[in-house]
Parts: sequence; structure tokens; C-alpha cells
Amino acid sequence: MKRFFTLLVALAATTILYAQPTVERWGCFEVSFKHTVKGGENPFAVTLEATFTQGDKALTVKGFYDGDNTYRIRFMPTEEGTWHYTTRSSARTMNRQRGTLEAVAPTGDNHGPVTTDEDQGFRYADGKRYHPFGTTTYALSLFRPSTQEKTLRALEASGFNKTRFCILPKDYPTELEQPTIFPFEMKSCTTNAEGKKVYEWDFERPNPLFFQNVDRRILDLQRLGIEADLILFHPYDRGMWGFDDMGFEGDCRYLDYLIARVGSYRNVWWSLANEWDLVRTKTEEDWRGLTRHVVAADPYRHLCSIHGGSAVYFDYHMPEYTHVSFQDEGPLYTMTASGTMRQIFHKPVIADEIGYEGNTSMRWARWSPQFMTHLVTNGIMGGIYVTHGACYNTGEEDWVYWSDGGDMEGESWKRIAFLRQIVEEAPNPIRPADISRDEVTSTAGEGYYFVYFGQQIQRDWAFNIPRSNQRFKRGEEGQQFQVEIIDLWNMTIERCPTIFEATKVIDYRHYDKNHRQVQLPETPYLLLRITRVE
Amino acid sequence: MKRFFTLLVALAATTILYAQPTVERWGCFEVSFKHTVKGGENPFAVTLEATFTQGDKALTVKGFYDGDNTYRIRFMPTEEGTWHYTTRSSARTMNRQRGTLEAVAPTGDNHGPVTTDEDQGFRYADGKRYHPFGTTTYALSLFRPSTQEKTLRALEASGFNKTRFCILPKDYPTELEQPTIFPFEMKSCTTNAEGKKVYEWDFERPNPLFFQNVDRRILDLQRLGIEADLILFHPYDRGMWGFDDMGFEGDCRYLDYLIARVGSYRNVWWSLANEWDLVRTKTEEDWRGLTRHVVAADPYRHLCSIHGGSAVYFDYHMPEYTHVSFQDEGPLYTMTASGTMRQIFHKPVIADEIGYEGNTSMRWARWSPQFMTHLVTNGIMGGIYVTHGACYNTGEEDWVYWSDGGDMEGESWKRIAFLRQIVEEAPNPIRPADISRDEVTSTAGEGYYFVYFGQQIQRDWAFNIPRSNQRFKRGEEGQQFQVEIIDLWNMTIERCPTIFEATKVIDYRHYDKNHRQVQLPETPYLLLRITRVE
Repeated sequence: MKRFFTLLVALAATTILYAQPTVERWGCFEVSFKHTVKGGENPFAVTLEATFTQGDKALTVKGFYDGDNTYRIRFMPTEEGTWHYTTRSSARTMNRQRGTLEAVAPTGDNHGPVTTDEDQGFRYADGKRYHPFGTTTYALSLFRPSTQEKTLRALEASGFNKTRFCILPKDYPTELEQPTIFPFEMKSCTTNAEGKKVYEWDFERPNPLFFQNVDRRILDLQRLGIEADLILFHPYDRGMWGFDDMGFEGDCRYLDYLIARVGSYRNVWWSLANEWDLVRTKTEEDWRGLTRHVVAADPYRHLCSIHGGSAVYFDYHMPEYTHVSFQDEGPLYTMTASGTMRQIFHKPVIADEIGYEGNTSMRWARWSPQFMTHLVTNGIMGGIYVTHGACYNTGEEDWVYWSDGGDMEGESWKRIAFLRQIVEEAPNPIRPADISRDEVTSTAGEGYYFVYFGQQIQRDWAFNIPRSNQRFKRGEEGQQFQVEIIDLWNMTIERCPTIFEATKVIDYRHYDKNHRQVQLPETPYLLLRITRVE
Repeated sequence: MKRFFTLLVALAATTILYAQPTVERWGCFEVSFKHTVKGGENPFAVTLEATFTQGDKALTVKGFYDGDNTYRIRFMPTEEGTWHYTTRSSARTMNRQRGTLEAVAPTGDNHGPVTTDEDQGFRYADGKRYHPFGTTTYALSLFRPSTQEKTLRALEASGFNKTRFCILPKDYPTELEQPTIFPFEMKSCTTNAEGKKVYEWDFERPNPLFFQNVDRRILDLQRLGIEADLILFHPYDRGMWGFDDMGFEGDCRYLDYLIARVGSYRNVWWSLANEWDLVRTKTEEDWRGLTRHVVAADPYRHLCSIHGGSAVYFDYHMPEYTHVSFQDEGPLYTMTASGTMRQIFHKPVIADEIGYEGNTSMRWARWSPQFMTHLVTNGIMGGIYVTHGACYNTGEEDWVYWSDGGDMEGESWKRIAFLRQIVEEAPNPIRPADISRDEVTSTAGEGYYFVYFGQQIQRDWAFNIPRSNQRFKRGEEGQQFQVEIIDLWNMTIERCPTIFEATKVIDYRHYDKNHRQVQLPETPYLLLRITRVE
């Protein structure tokens, strides 16, 4: 109980004393109630919700049973100022409870939840630009606590600001740890004739301890400035436990419980599934229904998408999906094809799986770190975002793959962190400058270009930029430019001493007046940053 | 009048004698009425429609005024058997007219309208597979009759089975002929202070002569087995005549008139626009509205799409669109990226513009015939279709670009015709065999693969095929294969004498048991056809 109370204060950053509680805008306010059901009743069956109002605004959130005769309601104030709330519950003790809270200005790194903008990009709710540089730690909250802590320390040391992980336990050949705690109350566990464990669960009774750990990990990530891209369902149960086969109603009950618990955490994203098409127990119509259910249950409209198997695309035009989250190496092989992906969907696009860096025998987990860096850069230059993953078989006794959690592995993550800086320094999100025509040049605004040479080794480069400059002001004759040589693999930036001067347009391009060149180191993964000088 | 009657019989393949008229299923039945409006009334304002019924089926088509006090109703019977019809009209003489027609079995090349199938492909209504191999003849029905006849003769000699063309006049630097006949009645034509012609039109009075020519050209194409992909609007008016600025109501009136005239021709497709985003007079919402209007007015549900500017994608998930029709070279640069396009939309995909073969100074019209052939092949191997276009400046006096019509130009069209044969011989539509992983191998079924080397020159090729085979049965150890070397540029097919025998799966692929190779001619654009031998 002591731990529980510490957790409450720490997590919710809320003072639930007798005075009016204060919480930051986009922080999490929590109110709890004690209520004991009659013998034989299911405490999870007690309904509880609250409507929070401020002027015209009204947001309704569900409460949840957290074990120990304790019910909680969590709420993220979306505006500063005084919020009033009233509860409704099937339990008289928790019904028509009223209260107020004061939402104060956010502090520190609290920029609110991430949302999308009209330019197919992402921003925090306070307007600050957000560029997702994500990784994959499927079992972040599922392995033993020491592994979970390792994952968090590794994330802290990395440059990642988003991670994808599964809520429900995962069974896979790469999983070298087995869960010891489960999301539902176990009714029985027997061993059948083939020696296989057969579980029976009470899907109407979630396990609060399991979900308290989920809460904790999401808030750990929040403190690190990392968005939690929660994978709500996945195909890696495969008859092991049966959490992929709870029926549509059971699925919705699970979603409601999860959303009630973590929906008021600002760094939450909903990923309906990893590899939805490989989940044999659900149809496409189920996925549509579950997606609608999540969005209807989430008053904040957190980011929401769904991830498919290799090159399997859901109908991302469904208005419930805020962005595209695909698995497909294909479009990442070139900046051009990545650029087309940006054009198709009219929403931000994240390549959330493009294989993993690693040394395994599985072909989806054996990219070199160089090639992983290259694919990520192709995506970024094409105007989409790309998620990292790594799977190194180190042969050590207690290793797990980074794509599940544990210690950081591989080499590309450092380069991705370096690339993130370059992207964040740019005045606008990067896009192809002259889509469908120019295969190497991107733009981040007026007088701000990138040229990416990829795997090619080139000794020198004659200055040239396209006339087209996406939606930005075009270059003009006589403008002067400097060129920085960014070595993505060695993570260095060197400024070329020459100042280049643009010619008039010659066959759709500007060249340097004196045909001057940039000398390049003879190494691949070079990116030029070309910026106008006054 | 004589010409008109001949046309009627020839075009409609209908006997409208006193006996019960007979028409082929998917042919065009036509009934006409004489009616003279009172002085001062607009004959186009008279309403006329008919409902054709057979058992439970009921299809309603609009009639139209065809000049000379003549009104017509056209109807395409979608089933064999007896159809009954009843008219409704604001003119008493044409109201409540009843009749019957007998739809008989189709003959010859009449396979019905083209429709889509569940496998993201196309089929005729009778089930016969249709692979669109299209070209672009924007001004097919707009230039002088001798040029129109040239276009048709050239199409007949080509291997194309679809062509895109504009209904409304087009003004563009490439247009070396000017229209002499217009789609609406001209109220006045004056010359303004700058010497520019200023037209005033009566958009409520279409010009029957103009549209009779459209009818004729569609039926000319039908006789040649060519689908007419009608471009309903385009941005190439640009203040010249104002046909791009008739207002939403004017647009709908024009569409109703056109659909009444040609909607009962089986080879009609609706392309809402060429380069919709460049039409400055219409918003995205207008396009949605116009699309819905077309589909609502078309009882047959002809194929329907919309084409954008370079890499500008409409929301093709709108249910009104039967297929995707995009302009973007980007995805065609690789088979892989073309394959991704097939995966995204869950509808058939046609790259309806990927630049043109040609020798002009415009960068979108200067592909070499080799590269045009290559792009088309990339698309086909990726599982999408690709439309041809050509623009050669021959310097001759009365030339027009093939992309508008006239004499056939260039070299790629022959290779595309050759490729069409290969595609039509395959047992299924071609798809990437192992999407997102294998960048060269496609499949057309069990034991039926293609490997495309593209622009690469390779001396020999060690037999290997992927384990994955899209949705088809996978290969197995011990299976024997023959390999044909298809030279797409020289249009030859040579059979390699070796019979290859597949190994077990080694790292996701089958190899030849004895590591045998295929010797290749040292030339680019080679396609291997690998088929199982019993």
C-alpha cells in the first residue's frame, strides 16, 4: 500500500489532498475511491466514469478497478484552468461524486500529447514540432523487471523519442524470457497429453498488478521524453495463452480497461496491432470495429494506427487512423519511393518496420548497421519517418534482442540519433524537392536543401539544385549557398569553404556560376546540407 | 439524315423496325423520338428518361436531345432476354412510351464492359481477363477528321487496348491544331483589347454535332477492341474557352448529357480529370461531388477514376473509384516500388502517366524508348499497369504528338505490344513473388515465374527462385523448370536448352541442383520466363 501511494503521487504528479488539487495541463489527475463489492460479485463489473467540464468543454473518462478494493479515475486536462467533474457509477458510494481540479501551465518537457498537423507532420499539442525517431522494444513491459530496467536505461542513452511495445504477452522464437505475470486472472493451468500447458483465464478479471506495471513503464518513458506506441494486439500468442482469442466483446473489455488506465497519459499512442493480418482470430471487419472502439473510448484522440505484415497495407484512409504505420522495406530502398508514400496517404507516414539490424539467420533481422542507417535516411529524405529495430545474437546467456528490450545492440542507433539532430535543426520537415524527377535532392524550406548520395561513393559533386522546391520559395539566380558535408556513418559535419552562386535555371536546375565542385571524402552515406548565405 | 440513320444502325447494332428490336447483350439499343419545342424554348431543357426492366432488374437511363428535333434514349442490356421500358418526359409526346427489346447473346469480340475483380485485376463482364495496355491520345476526337482517322489507324496497328482522351477541347503548347467545332453553342466571339478571343457560350445548349463525333470515336474504338478512358475535365483550357469554368451545376449538366449519350457504350471508362489538381476552378470537394454525380448517373457502373498531377494522389479509397489512375514516375523506377503500389490501394492500379517517350525539351516528354519500355515492364512485374505516351518533335509541317493523336511515333509501343502478349499468355496476373524481399522475381502462378534484369547487362544467371510465391502454391525440391530468355527490346523469345531442377529451400530460395546457369545475350531489358515442366 505504501508503494501504491508513492506510485500514485509520483505518477500522477497530482496533489489529491483536501485542498483543490493542482495538475499540469496534459499531466494526469487521479482520484481514487474505496469500494468493496458483495461476496461473489466481480469488482471489475462495477461501472464507473466521470465527466470533466470546463466551460463548453466536456470530456468523459472511464474509471477502473485497481485491486485492493480501490477504484480510480484518471484524467488529462487538455486546457489550463478549473475543471469540474461528476462521477457516475453502478456503486452508490462512487456515484455522483463531484470535485474540481486546477490545471496549471505545463513545465519542463511537458509539451502535451503528440498530434498531427496539416503538413503531414507531427507536433506536440503546444505546437512544438515532433519528429518521430522510434525504435522497437516489443517486450518492454513483459520481461523480468531487471530486463525492463535495462531497456529503459538503454532508451535513455539513445536518441529515440518513440518506442513500440506490446501490452499482451508475446511468444516467439526470439523470446528468451517467459512472462511470470499475466494480464488476466488465471482460472487454471493444466498440462495436456502432449505436455503442453493449457491455460484457462477469466477475461472479465484483468490482473491489476500486470497493468500497474504497464502504467509504470509508460510513465518511465514519459519522463525520458519517449512516446509509447502501444501495440494493443499481436499474432505472437499463437495458442500459447489465448489472449488473441477473447472474442470481440472480450477484446473491447480489455481495451476499455487499458484505455481507462493509460488513456490519460499524454505520451500514449494506439497501435491496434502489430502484423494485423497474421492474427488468425480476427477479420478485417473486427479490426475496423476494434479501431472504432478505441477511438470512441479515447476522449483525447491520441494518435492511432495499425501495422500489418510485410507489404500488407490496411485501409489507412479510415478517419480513425491519424497516421500510416506500415511494414515494408520496398519503398525504403529509394528516397523516390519513400516520397511517393508521403504523397499517397494525406497523413503522416511512419515505416514502423523495415526489417532489423542484426546478425540472425532470419532474413528480416540481418541488415547491416550501414544499410539500416541508409534505409532510415532514404525515408527521412523522402518525407516519411522510419522506425529502428535490432536483433543481434550475442550468444551470451541472458541476452534478449533489442527489438524486444534489454541492452542496446548494434550500431545504427547512434547514426539515427545523429540524423535526428540534423532533422530537428531544419526549419521545416524534409521533403523531396522535386518529387518524381529528382532522386537525390530534398528540401526543408527556402534556401535549405539536402543531397543524399546513399551507398554511392563519389569523389566530388558539382553544385546543382532543382528549380522546383516543393511548396517553398524557389531558388533564384545569384543566390549564394554554403555546403556542409555530413558523414552519416562517421557522424561528422564538415563545412566546404567554397561559397557557391546559383546560375539562372538551365534545364530545370540551378548550377554554380563557375562550375565549382565540392570535394567529398571517399566514403558512402554522405549527406550534403546546402543552405543559403546572405 | 441519311448519314444519321446509317450511323444509328451501324453504331447501335440495333434493328429498330416495327418488329421487336434485337440487340446483343452489352450492345447498345437506341430509340428515338421526334419532338419540336415551342418557339423560344430550349430543346435541351426537355426532360426524358426511360426505365428498362427485366424481372427484378431495373435500370434507368436519361435520354438526350440530338438536334434536328430528335431525342434519343440509349440502353445497354446487361442481361440476355426480354427488356421492357417505359419513358418519362416533360414533353407529352415522349412521355409514357413503352416498348420491348430482346437482348441476345454477344458475338465476336463483345465481352461486355470491363470491370474489376477481387484480385485487383480487370475482367470483361463475361469473365474474360482484361489487361489494360493503354496509350494516350488526348485530342483523339478534337483534331480535324483526317487526324482523327490517322489516330484510329495507328491504334488499330498498335497493340494498345485502351486509350485516354479528353472530351473537352484542349489548349496546350503541344496542340498544333485548333478545334473548329465546340461542345456548346457559341453566343459570341469577340476580340478584346489585347487581341485575345473572348468567347461567350450557352452551356445549357450542347452542340450535338460535337458530341456525335465523340459517339463515333468511342464506337470506332469499340470496333478495334479498345477501351475509351474518357477524360471528363482537364486543366488545359486555361481561360481559352472557359469549359473548365461552367460552375458545379453546369459541370453536372454537361456530365448528364455526355453520360446519356455514351454511357450505354460498353467500352467507356470515366476519368474525372487529367491532372485534377491543376484545374484552378475546382476544389477537392468539387471533384468528390462530380465523381459522385457521375457514378449516380451511370446505371452500369463503368470503371471510374481520377488522374492527378505529378505525384499528386487523390483519395482513391472513395468507393466511387474502381481503380487508381496516377501520374508518378517515382514508383516505376523499380519493380519493388511498383509492387508496393499494388499493395496499398486494394484496387487495381494503373500508372496512367509516367512521362512520355520523346525528344522534346520538356522533361516529362523525353524518355528514350528503351527507358519507357523499362518503366512499363517494372510496373507489370510489380503487379500494376502502365500507360504509354509519346511526344516526338519530327519537325514536319502537320505533325501532332502521338500523346494527342495522329500517326504513331516512337519505338516503345512495339515492345509494349510484345509485352502484352507475354502478360496475356500467363495463367494469372503477374505479381511480385516475394514482395519487399526479392527485387527481380515475379510470379504468375504455380510454377510460373519471371525474372527481369532491367537495364542491367548480365552474362549468365544461376537458376534461383524464391520460396515465397505470392498467394500461389510454392515450388518444391525436385521440381523441374525450363527458362525462356525474352529480349524485350529485340522482341525475341529463346528457350534455354537446360532443364533445371530445384533444390530444397536454402536461405529462403531454391537453386538448381547442379548449380547450372542460363547463358544470356549481353543486352539489357531481358526477361526470363521460368515455367515448370512435368
